Amino acid sequence: MKEKNLELERLVFFSDAVVAIAITILVFNLKLIGDEGKHITFTDLWQTWPKVLAFFLSFFIIALFWKLHHQFFFYIRTIDEMLLWNNICWLLFLVLLPFSTTLIATHFTDSAAMVAYCANVLLINVFQNNIWDYAAKRPELLTPGIDERLTKFYRRVCNVAMINSVISLAIAFFFPVVGFIILVVRLPALMFSERLFKAMK
Amino acid sequence: MKEKNLELERLVFFSDAVVAIAITILVFNLKLIGDEGKHITFTDLWQTWPKVLAFFLSFFIIALFWKLHHQFFFYIRTIDEMLLWNNICWLLFLVLLPFSTTLIATHFTDSAAMVAYCANVLLINVFQNNIWDYAAKRPELLTPGIDERLTKFYRRVCNVAMINSVISLAIAFFFPVVGFIILVVRLPALMFSERLFKAMK
Amino acid sequence: MKEKNLELERLVFFSDAVVAIAITILVFNLKLIGDEGKHITFTDLWQTWPKVLAFFLSFFIIALFWKLHHQFFFYIRTIDEMLLWNNICWLLFLVLLPFSTTLIATHFTDSAAMVAYCANVLLINVFQNNIWDYAAKRPELLTPGIDERLTKFYRRVCNVAMINSVISLAIAFFFPVVGFIILVVRLPALMFSERLFKAMK
Amino acid sequence: MKEKNLELERLVFFSDAVVAIAITILVFNLKLIGDEGKHITFTDLWQTWPKVLAFFLSFFIIALFWKLHHQFFFYIRTIDEMLLWNNICWLLFLVLLPFSTTLIATHFTDSAAMVAYCANVLLINVFQNNIWDYAAKRPELLTPGIDERLTKFYRRVCNVAMINSVISLAIAFFFPVVGFIILVVRLPALMFSERLFKAMK
Repeated sequence: MKEKNLELERLVFFSDAVVAIAITILVFNLKLIGDEGKHITFTDLWQTWPKVLAFFLSFFIIALFWKLHHQFFFYIRTIDEMLLWNNICWLLFLVLLPFSTTLIATHFTDSAAMVAYCANVLLINVFQNNIWDYAAKRPELLTPGIDERLTKFYRRVCNVAMINSVISLAIAFFFPVVGFIILVVRLPALMFSERLFKAMK
Repeated sequence: MKEKNLELERLVFFSDAVVAIAITILVFNLKLIGDEGKHITFTDLWQTWPKVLAFFLSFFIIALFWKLHHQFFFYIRTIDEMLLWNNICWLLFLVLLPFSTTLIATHFTDSAAMVAYCANVLLINVFQNNIWDYAAKRPELLTPGIDERLTKFYRRVCNVAMINSVISLAIAFFFPVVGFIILVVRLPALMFSERLFKAMK
Repeated sequence: MKEKNLELERLVFFSDAVVAIAITILVFNLKLIGDEGKHITFTDLWQTWPKVLAFFLSFFIIALFWKLHHQFFFYIRTIDEMLLWNNICWLLFLVLLPFSTTLIATHFTDSAAMVAYCANVLLINVFQNNIWDYAAKRPELLTPGIDERLTKFYRRVCNVAMINSVISLAIAFFFPVVGFIILVVRLPALMFSERLFKAMK
Repeated sequence: MKEKNLELERLVFFSDAVVAIAITILVFNLKLIGDEGKHITFTDLWQTWPKVLAFFLSFFIIALFWKLHHQFFFYIRTIDEMLLWNNICWLLFLVLLPFSTTLIATHFTDSAAMVAYCANVLLINVFQNNIWDYAAKRPELLTPGIDERLTKFYRRVCNVAMINSVISLAIAFFFPVVGFIILVVRLPALMFSERLFKAMK
């Protein structure tokens, strides 16, 4: 079992490194409009607000995904191949998020951009949900004696996040900015839900 | 021996970090055709499909290389200088893959681009093969009591991957897209082969 | 408690990885003025001095933040949610610093650029201060038996750094270059303050 | 002492992460000459040879620096502030190397570019030398019972590398390409010197 843990640690480490890079390269989306030659004013800075907004949203979305991922892997003690590939697909779409962020950062009001962004967030959600769904059904993968209410709670968190993504995706086709706002709303909701659980316990 | 393990851990950590960065910067290949000013449509997104395909293939190729690398180093307990340099050369060509991916992402149907890509994949294969070949012949480098069938199995996996790369390289000179498809085929094949071994055991 | 430490270690690891990436991508600010085609001379290199200066300042500012962060987490033995989010916000603004560095690297004498840079440094300071303030007030989060003078000393270091940032921010509105120089001064001051404390002890 | 080790581990980890990123972003120097629109041929690929050469040299130079750094920190058991700042300066110039590599990749035959590159390599050497020089003189920083011949050997390796950098720097003013070749020569020399020591022992 010690050996399995070693493999698990490496997967977690590798995931952490990829997430750390993805969250950092978000900053490349911030660029001033206009060329290097001329002076910049506070107005120039101010006009970058859609990019800054997109940067902030993506940063906190990735941070929340990372936090949840860690909470999952705090209770997962062994991995098998299925879990590994679910985790790799989770990473795949997480790595894509900086690109989707570029899309909305430069085309904030275009529905094609916002749809791509929401679809991306949804896909990360789907694989994060897969990870917990798969692990929670297999007691041999989890630390023994895990509280069943916790298992259910995490499943519900994933579901709430998925529903939020689906709604924002559907709306983004017609009202891109509203889709964005719905995604923003998930952040405090997810943070709040956590406290709710602790109060319950 | 504990000291040697420390050195080994650092090499594995360093390799993991490099692979994590290489797999993440693949996303820089995704760029929209056209300039920032105008609106983007779903057609614009759709036209990026060669880039998205190239991104997906490279992502899974690197993920598979990483997985195999980990399985190797799960059984390797000590490193010597030869193994270290083989590993560094493995990293060298792995780091090159994002560049080769750019080539095929922007010139999907040019044989020069596809040949460069296939040659790059082949070179990673060669050094991965070297690592296992070198270690498997030296029992003092491996964990004691390793199953000989496993040693052979990994060697065969390397060989199959190398043959796949050579074929795709040869074909890419004449039919770049067919070369690409042959590389795609390796992915399920390598995943499947693993299960085959487990069934045997 | 061992479990909590595991979570703490991962947070520290994740923070380290993000800081390592942020400090490395600073180098992307260094670019020659002029196009690839023509030859470059020593004059061309010399003319990059504002970029090199900005690179050096940001590198040492991040290095100092990292060092202090480590010293904090050397004494913090448990994290709670509040500390986690303070740390994530600390990372958020640290990740922004390469962008602010680009602003001053390309517009060294524009007050809008320098104000953005100083505000960014201030915001990192604020959250670093929050981390220690929050932890220092809760003995259950710290290693038992920590010297109270140390707690106070670190608080004072944070305060000095914040005051320095506020002053440089205020001055940057009118004299950008003076604001920059005040930020430069903090570096030896912070290094020196450390020695002062050791002498006291 | 356990606590000190923890700090040391983090410094080594942070250094490893920075080096891993620096070595990976070297690949951004590889770009095709010409625009995206037209087809690429084998001639286009072939014309990138100065960039590929620069990439290879920098990759192996960083790999060798990393290897030596690890060997140093294998024997260093504690760090103090002086060692920390020497290490941070070492990282500073290591992070600069991808920029210097861009200079020679795009202006292979310009002496200004090659001088900057050689100076950069020299500066990394200087701080690596400082690290070992400082630690080797303080037995309290090293693992007890370290072979004195080893201490001397590492000092000599640093000196040889520094002399090589100085010579290449001096020559690069007049014959850039010769300066480059002298840097290339160091690679097998440094690898060979290692074996020499082992033969001696």
